[in-house]
Amino acid sequence: MHRSRVSTFLIDVRRDEVDDAAAFWSRALGVRTSSPEGEPQFTTLHDAVPGYVTAIQSVDDEPRYHLDIETDDVEAEAARLVALGATVVARPPGWFVLRAPSGHILCVVAVQSERGYFEANSTVIS
Amino acid sequence: MHRSRVSTFLIDVRRDEVDDAAAFWSRALGVRTSSPEGEPQFTTLHDAVPGYVTAIQSVDDEPRYHLDIETDDVEAEAARLVALGATVVARPPGWFVLRAPSGHILCVVAVQSERGYFEANSTVIS
Repeated sequence: MHRSRVSTFLIDVRRDEVDDAAAFWSRALGVRTSSPEGEPQFTTLHDAVPGYVTAIQSVDDEPRYHLDIETDDVEAEAARLVALGATVVARPPGWFVLRAPSGHILCVVAVQSERGYFEANSTVIS
Repeated sequence: MHRSRVSTFLIDVRRDEVDDAAAFWSRALGVRTSSPEGEPQFTTLHDAVPGYVTAIQSVDDEPRYHLDIETDDVEAEAARLVALGATVVARPPGWFVLRAPSGHILCVVAVQSERGYFEANSTVIS
């Protein structure tokens, strides 16, 4: 048994367009931005979607949105989604990049939110 | 003065893949699905992201995610986002399809949520 929840909305942007994207999205959504300590590839849009993390991610790929699922068992959750038809795009240490059968990217990551919040807001997977 | 908020996450899927996508996403997120009365192009994923609407949308285009901003002044909100650098992709009656400078689609729609919820959770745009 493990738990999971949709936790994060990512706005993937080409590396050289991150500054312009951060300026647009922070003004569009009326929120401040900052990069988490040691993670310059992310620009958090604070409280853009209250209850969830919203961030611009610098990528070397096409611009797109994607979402993250946080879970207390990354291996089991990824295996479950693969059994439902997702494919593994990448498997960096500790997390998975999956593609849904519909073509959409979703990542499976370890719990990012505060533990009590995660437990109160996640779904039990039996 | 008007108000706006991110209200809706759309999973855009080609028309002939909607059934498979609904099966995957409902199981992946552990939620039930239904189509709103009179809007067969949408398949709601109930409470997939509590506090927000999450839905699969049937499109004749590439699969992607996009988001909707709901507002009590669609014209003013769209004009504001265009002034920030967004471009108008389509202007169906009553709403706008915009593309952010970063390349991401976002729609500006009339208030969809219950009025009190909207007022309590939206941002005032001066």
